[in-house]
Amino acid sequence: MKNKPWHNVPAEAVEGMPGVSIRWVVGEDDGAENFAMRVFDVEPRATIPSHHHWYEQEMFILSGEGVAEAGGEEERVGPGSVLWVEPDEPHAFRNTGDDVLRFVCCVPLRND
Amino acid sequence: MKNKPWHNVPAEAVEGMPGVSIRWVVGEDDGAENFAMRVFDVEPRATIPSHHHWYEQEMFILSGEGVAEAGGEEERVGPGSVLWVEPDEPHAFRNTGDDVLRFVCCVPLRND
Repeated sequence: MKNKPWHNVPAEAVEGMPGVSIRWVVGEDDGAENFAMRVFDVEPRATIPSHHHWYEQEMFILSGEGVAEAGGEEERVGPGSVLWVEPDEPHAFRNTGDDVLRFVCCVPLRND
Repeated sequence: MKNKPWHNVPAEAVEGMPGVSIRWVVGEDDGAENFAMRVFDVEPRATIPSHHHWYEQEMFILSGEGVAEAGGEEERVGPGSVLWVEPDEPHAFRNTGDDVLRFVCCVPLRND
């Protein structure tokens, strides 16, 4: 078993997304075989532009306020929101609050 | 995309574990293919007895205080703790605080 506070994992900038950082809190380096857990911080007014990928993702909003966009629809998210994004679905996020929008985001490690 | 507050998902009792409930906040019914996200509530003084399973699990402690045990070692956990339990590793939890110990726990959906 491994046990660590999420904030002890170094935050990495995300290319092309100013104000967005990622921490790989559980990944292949820990021994994970099937999926990874990351924690994202999105600063106030920062955005994650629309993008898509082959893998589904599962998210749990820890703090902050924002808007998630997918399929032309917008949804407000806040602490305790759970999101599931299907494979290949374009999706975007923006922080609409005054505090960091922070969420857990889990993704598969491989395509099979 | 699906978006729901975690607490809108009905809590289910866990057999043989009084004071422990589970919510499947993202699962196969949502379309998840690779892994599921659950939210557990462990009431004060309740325990999850030692058990093991073929799958790894990844956890994020949302609130409360507790002790995680694996491999004969005990670790204190609290809000923001991230745990990774390797496949087949026996592990147990107990709530040592006065409030609910609540955590996100993700597990693979299949063995391949």
